[in-house]
Amino acid sequence: MTQFTVAVAQLDSRADKAQNVQRMCSSVDEAANRDADLVAFPEMATYMGDPNRYTAVAESFPGPTTNALAEKAREHGLYVHTGSFFESIPDSDRVYNTSGVIDPDGNLLDTYRKIHLFDIHGDVEYQESDNVAPGEDVTTVDTELGTVGLSICYDLRFPQLYRALAALGAEVLFVPAAFSLHTGKDHWESLLRARAIENQAYVVAPGQIGDKPDSMETYGKSLVVDPWGTVIAKASDRPEMITATVDLDYLDEVRTNLQTLEHVRPDVYE
Amino acid sequence: MTQFTVAVAQLDSRADKAQNVQRMCSSVDEAANRDADLVAFPEMATYMGDPNRYTAVAESFPGPTTNALAEKAREHGLYVHTGSFFESIPDSDRVYNTSGVIDPDGNLLDTYRKIHLFDIHGDVEYQESDNVAPGEDVTTVDTELGTVGLSICYDLRFPQLYRALAALGAEVLFVPAAFSLHTGKDHWESLLRARAIENQAYVVAPGQIGDKPDSMETYGKSLVVDPWGTVIAKASDRPEMITATVDLDYLDEVRTNLQTLEHVRPDVYE
Repeated sequence: MTQFTVAVAQLDSRADKAQNVQRMCSSVDEAANRDADLVAFPEMATYMGDPNRYTAVAESFPGPTTNALAEKAREHGLYVHTGSFFESIPDSDRVYNTSGVIDPDGNLLDTYRKIHLFDIHGDVEYQESDNVAPGEDVTTVDTELGTVGLSICYDLRFPQLYRALAALGAEVLFVPAAFSLHTGKDHWESLLRARAIENQAYVVAPGQIGDKPDSMETYGKSLVVDPWGTVIAKASDRPEMITATVDLDYLDEVRTNLQTLEHVRPDVYE
Repeated sequence: MTQFTVAVAQLDSRADKAQNVQRMCSSVDEAANRDADLVAFPEMATYMGDPNRYTAVAESFPGPTTNALAEKAREHGLYVHTGSFFESIPDSDRVYNTSGVIDPDGNLLDTYRKIHLFDIHGDVEYQESDNVAPGEDVTTVDTELGTVGLSICYDLRFPQLYRALAALGAEVLFVPAAFSLHTGKDHWESLLRARAIENQAYVVAPGQIGDKPDSMETYGKSLVVDPWGTVIAKASDRPEMITATVDLDYLDEVRTNLQTLEHVRPDVYE
């Protein structure tokens, strides 16, 4: 398939996990109603609350939440990018911040654990590494829609990760996020467009929206960017779903005209 | 010095080399009048014309043009980033696309040869590698103003180069350019802001402006971006000079609050 429809669910997830999962399942229904082939969710889709409860709300992959989403995927025959939520680590007081890709048959194809953890001081204070352990694996997933590359939120600041994903064949880069208002207003769109431009790939970036009582005010502005860097869909300042067409023929045209991925010179700068 | 003033000369260089060099010297005078500590020029500052004449207009570094600029630097006691122009290669029918940094005593501190060459098809046709040989060295220069990292135009699409410059201590990244209107309108500002954000460095980007008879229509929009990604100076749509304050205390604050440069994980993705 060279063209498909991606749906992006911009969520206002809070501390009520059951309610959040219910909303995600409803969002898969909505995506199916809009003829989407894939629906994607933001970071911390099932829980944004007190970081001391991360282990309590964590679960396994596969687990109850991926199973619920897999049932919806199978019901409607579409792909689900789960967004991220917390994965339990046996005998640890930390969790992974993990995303997964589910196919239309309900199989959890692969998972990705966030590599770069968001530790910030100053106007925003947050120490993700207090409660979250870093992932260690660059992850692409081959699907019938194309090869997708996985990343989560703060990863966005590390261009080498996306170059590695592109080198592995990624055509669509997922960046589920919960960007703070403080950083998002100045960094979100520039960085997402740069990743699309420099890797000549689609970027699908579902964001959290809303001021979370136990966390931070989030930026929203979920985006889909095409391989030329054009923003082809953008969410309003509220929970909602946006859709866009991913056209891999256009991606091939961009990559043929300007062969940036071939011009890379790791021999010089690594 | 933790604060200094940078001046950026946006030029409309054409095929008359003597006139272009004369304008550059006048621009150093203007920068001095505006109390700049450093003045920077765009790519192909001395010649934008028929690519078959690149070898004919090329010269050595140091050579006549760097000597003329060095004299101006000494006269006014300021730094000059030469922008780029063509450097002769003995016994070759190609040239290097080279930039240099001159100190207030008129010394050519170091030079940088463009690593990535702009070969594009489609709406814009240009094959820089037909006439230009690639550089092989990542270059930072220690100055009394701070450590500067050098790059040229198409290099901007390769984030690994800027990560390498930041790892070598670069605080101010120079991106002299002659971006085409076609690519500049969609890529210029996003990529420049991304390089500033992800490396938490100032980005100084002097551009060519104007529709060059033997080359392409250029985009202009010379920028200075601060380490948070804010555009702090931007040129109008004509040849002109802009100035901005580079504040290395602010750079330190940004790098202290969010330690992106420490969070990099080459063990995972290289």
